[in-house]
Amino acid sequence: MKLYNENNPAPNPRKVRIYLAEKGLTVEQVRVPIMKRAHKDPEFLKKNSLGQLPVLELDDGTFISESVAICRYFEELNPSPAMFGTGAKERALVEMWIRRAEFRLWNPMGQVWIHSDPRTAPVVPLQYKEFGEMNRKVVANAMTWIDGEMADGREFLAGGNYSIADIVLLCGIDFAKFVNMDMPEECARLRHWHARVSARPSAAA
Amino acid sequence: MKLYNENNPAPNPRKVRIYLAEKGLTVEQVRVPIMKRAHKDPEFLKKNSLGQLPVLELDDGTFISESVAICRYFEELNPSPAMFGTGAKERALVEMWIRRAEFRLWNPMGQVWIHSDPRTAPVVPLQYKEFGEMNRKVVANAMTWIDGEMADGREFLAGGNYSIADIVLLCGIDFAKFVNMDMPEECARLRHWHARVSARPSAAA
Repeated sequence: MKLYNENNPAPNPRKVRIYLAEKGLTVEQVRVPIMKRAHKDPEFLKKNSLGQLPVLELDDGTFISESVAICRYFEELNPSPAMFGTGAKERALVEMWIRRAEFRLWNPMGQVWIHSDPRTAPVVPLQYKEFGEMNRKVVANAMTWIDGEMADGREFLAGGNYSIADIVLLCGIDFAKFVNMDMPEECARLRHWHARVSARPSAAA
Repeated sequence: MKLYNENNPAPNPRKVRIYLAEKGLTVEQVRVPIMKRAHKDPEFLKKNSLGQLPVLELDDGTFISESVAICRYFEELNPSPAMFGTGAKERALVEMWIRRAEFRLWNPMGQVWIHSDPRTAPVVPLQYKEFGEMNRKVVANAMTWIDGEMADGREFLAGGNYSIADIVLLCGIDFAKFVNMDMPEECARLRHWHARVSARPSAAA
């Protein structure tokens, strides 16, 4: 088994590294340098035709892409400690929060990165800059909304237990900062949550 | 237990209806008429602060939103027939294809709907029309890419078994048509797949 991956600041590869660290799992990793466009190489496209990282190669030759799908593969084989929730209700709430973090925060964050950041300009066919810049506000609103949802005193995003949903949100917020979108000052609950999950040793994985 | 939902053409509510039909499950449904903006009513926002459908209310008062999270809740309680895959590898591949259908097809489809369709103009603060129109090409490319992935002769999107990934793709493709984006003529494999899954009785749910 091999995990094709990249270092920081790539946010999707980081999700899998943090997940593995939390689970105490070790997997052979092969670095695919994005800055050298190695993920668009014809050889790599045979592993994932989308040219994206991470990709997990199983011993039978199957390739699994999408960071959360890779984590779920490991979760099925190593259920404890549970990172996708325990029981129907908690598992559904973890899934809900993964998706909320992705659709609300990651999607507009991606639009800022693609359409208004000078670092992606060389590889994006056409940047819609005004649209990209507008999405900064959408990202800030998402952070404020999550902060509001945390008013019930939950310790982690999906409730009382640290989960893959926290990993998705953490990597999103840290990448948003890389694209110059920090958490709004008034989001005290979100900031406390961020400090808590960032203090876990896994965050440095 | 109650499922707050809406009729066609709303694509996310349809996913849950098809899933329930495939599983042979019956749940009390409460219609929330989107055209009357009932999903933005203060009473409804207590169930889902995002003002989106579907929402599942459990008997203990918990609200679960996000269509795939709701389906996963039912799947945990009713594992057979498996709609999220069986075993670690298949479950990971189903998850991978849910996400590929969403990120590749649903996301740009949503941008067309939000930013270039006259029917959403009254409720979108500012439409970025050129950006919206450009996304028609992204949607067509996504359909062509999926058609290419089907060249291995698979019967369903994630392999040999009908799954929630097929439901996600079916509802996406049918909603894309509603926004005037049909499958490209040359996508014969995708069109055959679409005819197959549309012929299942669940598609009319």
